[in-house]
Amino acid sequence: MNDLRIALWQTPHPASLAEALQRLDTACAQARVQGADLLITPEMFLTGYAIGADRVAALAEPADGPMAQAVARIAQHHGIAIVCGYPEQNPDGRPFNAAQAIGADGTRLMNYRKTHLFGDLDRAQFSAGDAASQVFEWRGWRLGLLICYDVEFPETVRLLALQGVDAVLVPTANMVGYDEVQQLLVPARACENRVFVAYANACGSEGSVHYGGASTVASARGHLLVTAQRHATLMVSALDPGELVDARQHSQLPTRRPGLYQPLAVRE
Amino acid sequence: MNDLRIALWQTPHPASLAEALQRLDTACAQARVQGADLLITPEMFLTGYAIGADRVAALAEPADGPMAQAVARIAQHHGIAIVCGYPEQNPDGRPFNAAQAIGADGTRLMNYRKTHLFGDLDRAQFSAGDAASQVFEWRGWRLGLLICYDVEFPETVRLLALQGVDAVLVPTANMVGYDEVQQLLVPARACENRVFVAYANACGSEGSVHYGGASTVASARGHLLVTAQRHATLMVSALDPGELVDARQHSQLPTRRPGLYQPLAVRE
Repeated sequence: MNDLRIALWQTPHPASLAEALQRLDTACAQARVQGADLLITPEMFLTGYAIGADRVAALAEPADGPMAQAVARIAQHHGIAIVCGYPEQNPDGRPFNAAQAIGADGTRLMNYRKTHLFGDLDRAQFSAGDAASQVFEWRGWRLGLLICYDVEFPETVRLLALQGVDAVLVPTANMVGYDEVQQLLVPARACENRVFVAYANACGSEGSVHYGGASTVASARGHLLVTAQRHATLMVSALDPGELVDARQHSQLPTRRPGLYQPLAVRE
Repeated sequence: MNDLRIALWQTPHPASLAEALQRLDTACAQARVQGADLLITPEMFLTGYAIGADRVAALAEPADGPMAQAVARIAQHHGIAIVCGYPEQNPDGRPFNAAQAIGADGTRLMNYRKTHLFGDLDRAQFSAGDAASQVFEWRGWRLGLLICYDVEFPETVRLLALQGVDAVLVPTANMVGYDEVQQLLVPARACENRVFVAYANACGSEGSVHYGGASTVASARGHLLVTAQRHATLMVSALDPGELVDARQHSQLPTRRPGLYQPLAVRE
């Protein structure tokens, strides 16, 4: 198992899908020059995020629709995997706030629908996904996707850790004023589960919504390996599998007491 | 509901039970002078912690034994509640690593047995408790006890949060080299659950075991209200119920998806 070199692409949301794809293509070229294996965009990067329920519904596509195909061509062209946020069509209601991992050969590795919707913004635009995130394997790494608010819940990362995840990849659009997520919760999730967490945030604004940047990768001991400022940037960070081995000498998992945890899974 | 003024008593373990009770009496007097309502000792304060399985077994007592009665007299004498770590006799095996909350009138409020044993030190000396921590009420506050390693598991504090806990009180004996607990995990538990966490650590050494101090109280937003250095100290911190009200305007609890969390409670 080799280092996994992850590019966090901290960027404003685009004004159009055409702009999104053109800028994604440029970012992937730059990420490859910097040696990255995989690039993560912010949440709902392809169409924009705070764009209103009507526009989200109009732009939503199936997981294998034209947007996904265009992203797959970019991935294949540059030979880089892409984790990309987009609105997924939902025949039964509002679209899902989704993210897709596409391999460097253009094949889809995983599609995930955000399960924990954040506030009125999410609830007005999206349906919540009804499946917990599932681990997938790529280049020997066991990877998992979460989206923004999902990762703030200790349950979500624990569920991935119980599946043996090595790195959790998180497209996000976290606003100014919630910096405790990057500074406290993301490193805590990493530390308590002995996994890497890569958190790629948006920057800039959509209308009155201001994104906080500060994208970060937390190591499996909970140290912040890289942290962005508020402005646009592309940062590449190498995840060292040796760190997982070392950190897991002190893992919580063997000492968990699942027999005592039943109330965590009780529906109210 | 008034402020709850908590004294974190960061102290070395005593050489004898007589010394423990004498020093506890002095600390309670000092805490009252500083205005405290409740004092928390380190884990296994009354007898010492890293003292070997034989000595723990010899010193263990029932929850209503002479040790508890002596602590109750001290609480009543000074009019201060005490959360105190001690070894609880177990007819079926090694003692429990326990803590007891005793009210300012000397009545027992709660007894709790550590459920997540830490490493060889705990496993050689103790049996793990078989009940999750239960909330108890005192002066209008909903309180819960955890012991040391317990609080590092997100599940334990979440279980208390689901019972409506306001403040989690944690006698601990965390060693030098594990400062991420005080700096990262304790504030994360507070932040993600919108509860106060008061973490009273030991300092000094027992044989080759060196305790890291840095006792702390995290606010319901995850800010560290007070943090000790490594040396012995008694710090009083006022917990403001208004902070709970404010912080809970952004609570994770209503957005949890317990229907997806079943694997958290599955025994391996």
